[in-house]
Amino acid sequence: MKVGIQGIPGSFHHQVALNCFGETCGISGYRTFEEVARSVNEGKDDVGVMAIENSIAGAILPNYELIDRYGLTIIGEYYLPISHNLMAFPGQQMSDIQQVKSHPMALLQCKKFFEAYPLISLMDDVDTASVAKRISDEKVKGIGAIASTKAAEIYGLEILAYDIQTVKDNFTRFILLKKQPEKTSEMPDKASIKVTIRNEKGSLAKLLSLLSDCDMDLSKIQSVPVMDKPWNYAFFLDMQFADYDKYQEALKKVVASGGEVKVFGEYLNKK
Amino acid sequence: MKVGIQGIPGSFHHQVALNCFGETCGISGYRTFEEVARSVNEGKDDVGVMAIENSIAGAILPNYELIDRYGLTIIGEYYLPISHNLMAFPGQQMSDIQQVKSHPMALLQCKKFFEAYPLISLMDDVDTASVAKRISDEKVKGIGAIASTKAAEIYGLEILAYDIQTVKDNFTRFILLKKQPEKTSEMPDKASIKVTIRNEKGSLAKLLSLLSDCDMDLSKIQSVPVMDKPWNYAFFLDMQFADYDKYQEALKKVVASGGEVKVFGEYLNKK
Repeated sequence: MKVGIQGIPGSFHHQVALNCFGETCGISGYRTFEEVARSVNEGKDDVGVMAIENSIAGAILPNYELIDRYGLTIIGEYYLPISHNLMAFPGQQMSDIQQVKSHPMALLQCKKFFEAYPLISLMDDVDTASVAKRISDEKVKGIGAIASTKAAEIYGLEILAYDIQTVKDNFTRFILLKKQPEKTSEMPDKASIKVTIRNEKGSLAKLLSLLSDCDMDLSKIQSVPVMDKPWNYAFFLDMQFADYDKYQEALKKVVASGGEVKVFGEYLNKK
Repeated sequence: MKVGIQGIPGSFHHQVALNCFGETCGISGYRTFEEVARSVNEGKDDVGVMAIENSIAGAILPNYELIDRYGLTIIGEYYLPISHNLMAFPGQQMSDIQQVKSHPMALLQCKKFFEAYPLISLMDDVDTASVAKRISDEKVKGIGAIASTKAAEIYGLEILAYDIQTVKDNFTRFILLKKQPEKTSEMPDKASIKVTIRNEKGSLAKLLSLLSDCDMDLSKIQSVPVMDKPWNYAFFLDMQFADYDKYQEALKKVVASGGEVKVFGEYLNKK
């Protein structure tokens, strides 16, 4: 199994790949989500892992647009509990640390912890794991990273404090992508779709009422400007349902009411 | 006037800053949108320019989350027509170009043009203007950039083909951000707000019906996971209206029905 992720070993994407596909899966790290989508599209990787609601890079990610553009299929989802840990080059104590570098969201999520250490300055960096790698590669002292325990293990750093994030019960949602849909033994109870409707007064409210009347439980909505059709709107929707037939019926009703539907994936809700 | 943008001179953000605040405004370029938001929040820049619906970096940007987090105010919006131009180090012809490097979205938007040049390979790069800068700095021959006419001017490149994008009538929406709201002489007819509601069956459909009944015309919606309140949902909404009093009434009705409202800005619709 070849898995494409965005990021380096020790990143949250790497952790999700290992949890979903086992320690022996082959992992390719890419710089961008776009490269992950392309690699799955071109068959270089069997599956891609992509954060979709992300407490690290911000709450909203444009990745459904990539799935749409590269014609990929969502085969599943995964919720990773986000655990931030303070780590440093081995042999150092808390009192040796003058600065901590990490992704701005990670620093923000650990702000309360650092209130007790006013002498430590906090500094933005591009991501979490790459700071850990740099400390290891360049044997940097006096600087701490905030990253996963896996990153500490991979880069041989010592953890000075575990689980330093303010909100303890914090999950990031990832989706698993393939080029083609998979046959599954279980009935899906969640779907990600794109609906395009004409922009008329109250048309979105009508669409959502229709879905609600069919017992679809909406968990995500993003409007997308339709570049070449100025009077149309598209929406990326996630919805959960108890009854697969009712979901099929809902899609038919959307089409009957003039909407265009594209299904990105039908899968099992893991929340 | 000090203006913060994401990107380097010659980027689309740079163009918007010049169009909105004049050729003599002082411009600071930052690597990330986060740095732009922070600089406005800390008063280092008077105003920030931020793409919000972007045909370059994908259709959806997480920037409302930054506005929310840094407590900024949207004072206006600006639509820039996207014009892609093929440019190269001076003295070269189309036949000298073997490769064109640009942002993947820019390459995609110009795909049709390059079908007539099968010998030119297309290669992803991080953005549009930085390729133009690199060609100029390193006097690179045989490689073309796709960027704005402003970038060609700044970096002294020659334009080999103008307006090579497939869809000619393509705009990107930018918002203008300040730390504090501005007093304006004209009545706003557009607003960007955040609404938090309890997650009950059909609650979003009800919220949108309420807004539609008050003649609010929705032009953007993004759901946001509320990290520390698992049973709540938040939505970033843009809406246009003809009557400011009706807009105020709509907000009151949302609050009366149990929603929490945060206004990011009230401004003039420029579309």
